Amino acid sequence: MDPDAVAKAFVEHYYSTFDANRSGLANLYQEGSMLTFEGQKIMGSPNIVAKLTSLPFQQCQHQITTVDCQPSGPAGGMLVFVSGNLQLAGEQHALKFSQMFHLMPTPQGSFYVLNDIFRLNYA
Amino acid sequence: MDPDAVAKAFVEHYYSTFDANRSGLANLYQEGSMLTFEGQKIMGSPNIVAKLTSLPFQQCQHQITTVDCQPSGPAGGMLVFVSGNLQLAGEQHALKFSQMFHLMPTPQGSFYVLNDIFRLNYA
Repeated sequence: MDPDAVAKAFVEHYYSTFDANRSGLANLYQEGSMLTFEGQKIMGSPNIVAKLTSLPFQQCQHQITTVDCQPSGPAGGMLVFVSGNLQLAGEQHALKFSQMFHLMPTPQGSFYVLNDIFRLNYA
Repeated sequence: MDPDAVAKAFVEHYYSTFDANRSGLANLYQEGSMLTFEGQKIMGSPNIVAKLTSLPFQQCQHQITTVDCQPSGPAGGMLVFVSGNLQLAGEQHALKFSQMFHLMPTPQGSFYVLNDIFRLNYA
């Protein structure tokens, strides 16, 4: 299993789900998951999805610029670091963002998001 | 122990060391540490410090914009996510960067850097 390929596949799945059906992200978080969104700390899949689905825009499109990954220690986790552009419907300019995920393996052989930190990179 | 205060203290220590005496960063990495610097993967404290001290600039100054942190699981680790500006001597404009650290506790009650991912955020 190539970690870079796994990271890239996760990132593509995450942002295509975000852009098409944000509430579908619920499956990627668990009860112990944490999101820090622009400095606001949110815990647990239901609260995280409530935050993401209540963001003050409807249509959006993430365009990925870079994906880096590293194993995160002995427990089979993986750190994924993303930079890219976020285009909101009706806005002329895309917003730059950086985001990191700490992925942990599930018994089913997949991953869930234990840690998620998102920041816009203001010019 | 307030995790946000620990993260902020680590970040201040890391970048003040980087800006004043890059080779002093050796103490913050260990043999199993990993750095991904602009996509290049480097393993182990000696190789990481060799990379950082050989970057093609001498004087630099990091200015921190945001610091986010989360606990990273059961082992007492901490994820730290930083955004900021990097001013190189002789350059007119600062470079924007994002960087994440996965810190792990040491027996001495401090932390070392297990994972480090650095990216410039090009405009």
